[in-house]
Amino acid sequence: MRILLQRADGDSAPWVADFADLLPEARIIPWREGEPAQPCDYAVVWSPPASMAGELAAVKAIFNCGAGVDGLLKFGDALPGSTAIVRLGDAGMGMQMAEYVTHAVLRYFRRFDEYQLQAGRGQWQPLAPHSKEDFPIGVLGIGVLGSTVLEALAPFGFALRGWSRTQKSVPGVACFAGQEGLDAFLRGTRVLVCMLPLTAQTGNLLDRANLSKLLPASYLINVARGAIVAEPDLLMLIKSGQIKGATLDVLRHEPLPAQHPFWQEPAITLTPHISAMTLRRTSVAQIAGKIRRLAAGQSICDVVDRSLGY
Amino acid sequence: MRILLQRADGDSAPWVADFADLLPEARIIPWREGEPAQPCDYAVVWSPPASMAGELAAVKAIFNCGAGVDGLLKFGDALPGSTAIVRLGDAGMGMQMAEYVTHAVLRYFRRFDEYQLQAGRGQWQPLAPHSKEDFPIGVLGIGVLGSTVLEALAPFGFALRGWSRTQKSVPGVACFAGQEGLDAFLRGTRVLVCMLPLTAQTGNLLDRANLSKLLPASYLINVARGAIVAEPDLLMLIKSGQIKGATLDVLRHEPLPAQHPFWQEPAITLTPHISAMTLRRTSVAQIAGKIRRLAAGQSICDVVDRSLGY
Repeated sequence: MRILLQRADGDSAPWVADFADLLPEARIIPWREGEPAQPCDYAVVWSPPASMAGELAAVKAIFNCGAGVDGLLKFGDALPGSTAIVRLGDAGMGMQMAEYVTHAVLRYFRRFDEYQLQAGRGQWQPLAPHSKEDFPIGVLGIGVLGSTVLEALAPFGFALRGWSRTQKSVPGVACFAGQEGLDAFLRGTRVLVCMLPLTAQTGNLLDRANLSKLLPASYLINVARGAIVAEPDLLMLIKSGQIKGATLDVLRHEPLPAQHPFWQEPAITLTPHISAMTLRRTSVAQIAGKIRRLAAGQSICDVVDRSLGY
Repeated sequence: MRILLQRADGDSAPWVADFADLLPEARIIPWREGEPAQPCDYAVVWSPPASMAGELAAVKAIFNCGAGVDGLLKFGDALPGSTAIVRLGDAGMGMQMAEYVTHAVLRYFRRFDEYQLQAGRGQWQPLAPHSKEDFPIGVLGIGVLGSTVLEALAPFGFALRGWSRTQKSVPGVACFAGQEGLDAFLRGTRVLVCMLPLTAQTGNLLDRANLSKLLPASYLINVARGAIVAEPDLLMLIKSGQIKGATLDVLRHEPLPAQHPFWQEPAITLTPHISAMTLRRTSVAQIAGKIRRLAAGQSICDVVDRSLGY
């Protein structure tokens, strides 16, 4: 079998080596812009350029090296419905997101951001502690990654809430679902953790109207996709004090442009899309296993439902 | 029964109210500098001044509103051996310390301190992630608070180590003990979490010789007592790059003097002794329970062994 391999960073060599090791029966064809297309059975991609459309349309399944498949669904009808799009399962990303979100939640809860500002001024001043009763955490999107984040937060004793498109049940978590549950979910949440896929339904979901529903002096942590947040609305709510802080790992345009006002806003903490880095070896092992199942005519998990967008 | 109540912050009213509620059979006498001594059965104190020695020597038991009793043992022989000194048990401090230490560990492990510096420069640049194999965490002092911190770190999958005066066994933690175990403990530790009591044995324990044994590019988190760390030695090791960062909640002199060089060192994160704040209601409930047991002739836990200093 032949596998077309494409990396946005251009560095495909270590991926080729891992596939040679873990799926030796396959021949790996690194994709290069402008070279003639070669017939392949599968494609393994991350942020493929528009010029790959023809080659992607010709394979049986496309494996996305990440959980969010918005970079593939943008191809729309150029990818026929018979071509399976497969997202990466957890592959070590859940733990990384749990670390990222736990750090950000504790930072806000224990006021470490404020202590850091005080220390910069040479100020030694204990602040009134927040109470956990006043600090409910709400995770928007409770798939495999969102559930892992909720599990990591549970031992710290926060009141936990979760929202999903369809009703789910997570032990110890107040669960809300659907458009009709979103209002109640937001109105009782102090720290909103965004873990949604980017779809036609979630783009700009976190706009002024919805962000304004959060409890007073709220916080936003976005580890999903930047385009879910209406950035000017967030900035306005932060400047007005209604939202006290935001930790953003993902932005609408990445890298964040140099003149973007978020760089200058002290209440916004920025990281360069590192909350969950793809672990190459773990990912290759997962994809190799799925390819073997497909080649044997078996079913696989993590196949994207294009009507839902994830 | 009569209880002498003293608070370093002078605000004894809410403590009196809680005792009235939880131990109504007692009469609470707020201590005031310069007023005539009144005979009491018990004393409840925090950082008592030297002028209290006579009154403290006259009670049956002194309850310390914190875990560290160095502020009481400094009275030495002025407090007769027949006067029990009782430290606060967990009383909610373990969870607070777990939050504090987990936040600091994740901050170093995920390089959030470095990302913050980059963001301040408008720099969008992913950094190579640390590996957990290279990031063993060592907790120095595994009493009730140290054990709670280790439990909080366990779900994140770090390699955990613990050191105690006498051998202990904690599931999932590599345990070291005694003077002879300290070297091996330090030499395999990347992030050192200091949770020791301040005693004759632990003062200046973390000096140049011992801190130099840590793995290269190590980190120190001190939530115990400032005098355990030789501050000029720590500063020198940080300036040389051998220690990459320190998070210090406790300092030799508190508040940290304005001219202290720690204020100016970017690799040192300072907080004003807030890692575990005494929770008044929980503490009063615990002390009230112990006083009832003593009054009934029963034994209590958390009595300080003066020969050990904690």
